[in-house]
Amino acid sequence: MLPISNRGSLMPESPIRKLVPLAEEARQKGLTVYHLNIGQPDIATPQAMIDAVKENISPVIEYSHSAGNESYRHKLVSYYAKHAIDIHYNDIIVTTGASEAILFSFLGCLDVGDEVIIPEPFYANYHAFAIVAGINAVYVSSSINDGFCLPAIAEIEAKISSRTKAILICNPNNPTGYLYSKEELEQLEKLVLKYNLYLFADEAYREFCYEGNHFSALQFIDTSDNVILIDSISKRYSACGLRLGAIVTRNKLVIETIMKFAQARLSPPYYAQIAAEAAIDLPDDYFTVTKAEYKKRRDLIVKRLNAMPHVFCPNPGGAFYAMAKLPIDDCDKFCAWLLKEFSYNKATVMLAPGTGFYGTPGMGMQEVRLAYVLNTDAINAAMDCLEQALKVYPGRVNS
Amino acid sequence: MLPISNRGSLMPESPIRKLVPLAEEARQKGLTVYHLNIGQPDIATPQAMIDAVKENISPVIEYSHSAGNESYRHKLVSYYAKHAIDIHYNDIIVTTGASEAILFSFLGCLDVGDEVIIPEPFYANYHAFAIVAGINAVYVSSSINDGFCLPAIAEIEAKISSRTKAILICNPNNPTGYLYSKEELEQLEKLVLKYNLYLFADEAYREFCYEGNHFSALQFIDTSDNVILIDSISKRYSACGLRLGAIVTRNKLVIETIMKFAQARLSPPYYAQIAAEAAIDLPDDYFTVTKAEYKKRRDLIVKRLNAMPHVFCPNPGGAFYAMAKLPIDDCDKFCAWLLKEFSYNKATVMLAPGTGFYGTPGMGMQEVRLAYVLNTDAINAAMDCLEQALKVYPGRVNS
Repeated sequence: MLPISNRGSLMPESPIRKLVPLAEEARQKGLTVYHLNIGQPDIATPQAMIDAVKENISPVIEYSHSAGNESYRHKLVSYYAKHAIDIHYNDIIVTTGASEAILFSFLGCLDVGDEVIIPEPFYANYHAFAIVAGINAVYVSSSINDGFCLPAIAEIEAKISSRTKAILICNPNNPTGYLYSKEELEQLEKLVLKYNLYLFADEAYREFCYEGNHFSALQFIDTSDNVILIDSISKRYSACGLRLGAIVTRNKLVIETIMKFAQARLSPPYYAQIAAEAAIDLPDDYFTVTKAEYKKRRDLIVKRLNAMPHVFCPNPGGAFYAMAKLPIDDCDKFCAWLLKEFSYNKATVMLAPGTGFYGTPGMGMQEVRLAYVLNTDAINAAMDCLEQALKVYPGRVNS
Repeated sequence: MLPISNRGSLMPESPIRKLVPLAEEARQKGLTVYHLNIGQPDIATPQAMIDAVKENISPVIEYSHSAGNESYRHKLVSYYAKHAIDIHYNDIIVTTGASEAILFSFLGCLDVGDEVIIPEPFYANYHAFAIVAGINAVYVSSSINDGFCLPAIAEIEAKISSRTKAILICNPNNPTGYLYSKEELEQLEKLVLKYNLYLFADEAYREFCYEGNHFSALQFIDTSDNVILIDSISKRYSACGLRLGAIVTRNKLVIETIMKFAQARLSPPYYAQIAAEAAIDLPDDYFTVTKAEYKKRRDLIVKRLNAMPHVFCPNPGGAFYAMAKLPIDDCDKFCAWLLKEFSYNKATVMLAPGTGFYGTPGMGMQEVRLAYVLNTDAINAAMDCLEQALKVYPGRVNS
């Protein structure tokens, strides 16, 4: 028998993967399953993006520039300028999703055994890419009781070791929806300058902020060399399947280094770049309309959750996720039970167990993540299910 | 100043990247530059693939299955069956180009410090992905004098250490065009069974064989657990920009392990899968026509090269590359000189220096790789340039 690699064994399974067969069985029993478990929006991809793909007349679907088409990078400069982010087109490397941007940032800035500090709960795949890169993710806990705000700087500072090379934040946050304030980012800015660290800022949900404004880490000037922006068009334009993201940094040495990783994989996908370039010309009201839709959903889901006995859901300032604390013994058991044992009005709901978003064992046991990527009727029906489920779940606890 | 990673420093620059600005300058001087340096075919992407993309009516460009669309994987089973490769659709993970397939194979099967044996000259990015994965590529030299056939098995066996986990071959070969015989593959089969090694077989050029038939490593049954097939649609359908490849193996544990890496990056690109699925239904004469075109080009370029004094080019059995030995001091200098100093009939030629395809220092100094991805008129004009250049190149040596 041939051995697989240790890192292959260490790679986490997707926290929801084990639930997928259960959802399939529920459907086969005739149940409607409301999918609040993944960030796959139901919003239509803008027609202008799809049309741009259809109108492409190149006879050969060629490799693009390894950093992405120049025309697209030039357009991205204008996109970022609208967000008060002043960059040059050579500060951008177009990537195959934010996934590749995260991996390239880890590979280019950290070596095997180096450490990156990440507030938990965190986007689960950060952990997976840390394993790929052989680096250690060090977690500092944020709390649902504080609405998942940035942990105290002293707590973050206490985690810094001689191997720490970077801090990684997701703003607005997946899975919590928390929108970091300018003051919190200023605290992080001071910290990365003090310890000469990279600040990886994943801002894939920049457009979706419902209270206050988004402040990008790239708006700082003093940390121009420290900040690596990780971006994605997946959620912005409801175009997850395209697999297109970007690394943006003013650090020339990082760009030069990451370009070598980008060249090894030749180029980002062709059609995705054509669609994304067309997206930059969308009218500004595209986001007004989309944001209003998500805000309506957020307001509904948060209200419904907090109206349930012993349920607490802080009001998320951005993205399209909410983390809720439920009166349950174990979120993994509960989410499986919802699919296997429960139904209400011939339906049930699929949620993401909170434990999958924490690195510290035992954390998030009573928490679940809900992605409000369904319309308000479906959200209401899903909340009806959850409300009934919490009344009859055998592992209910009143705390 | 923030340090980049050691692996970032170690990453090789693309061997032709440093020549790109020189090619740009040559064009600005008004010269035509014949690009024989990269494997970007001029052949049109099949219209049926482009039409499938245009006809797609899904309103949301969603994530696909992390292993690729089921419908596409089912079709791939029929594609492989035509090549006498009997597999199940669950033996396939669709990847973002062969690039990702190579990386996932390294990550899933080898740990940091493990070794993979690769015949040199080799596809330059194997070296890059070995650095990404932190593994050591160990090279065993094939020789232009033997037409780059498989090095003697005893030589390969001598390279096996306690850290050796795999042998990697590219068949037909990039950069040499060599097509491995069934006997050579049988020798490799025995070796990987004897030492319990993986055999990574990159068969991206399967369709393009001009003498004899291609024998796939997956046609062996005894090594079902050892063989990991790396595949790509880039060259097959002249669709490099789509970024779509595959890992195919009967080893269930490897599939399960690599699936976790695939899940972390969510899914392969959407439009690429639609185009690739349509490609499976292309009439068989698509390859007859394309192959005839490449064979005509190969025959021409090999004849022209061997007609030049002191030039030797073995006849490549497959792919669309030829390696030639030239009467020059240093291929890097020569390729730069062609762009900077030389012109003939207001044109010059861009070649890939042989050194970039070797891991052993000093190897390939007199060799260049030529990709016959241009039509025969352009190839003739490019060979006219090369013939003249070799007459006047200051670093000419008569050996």
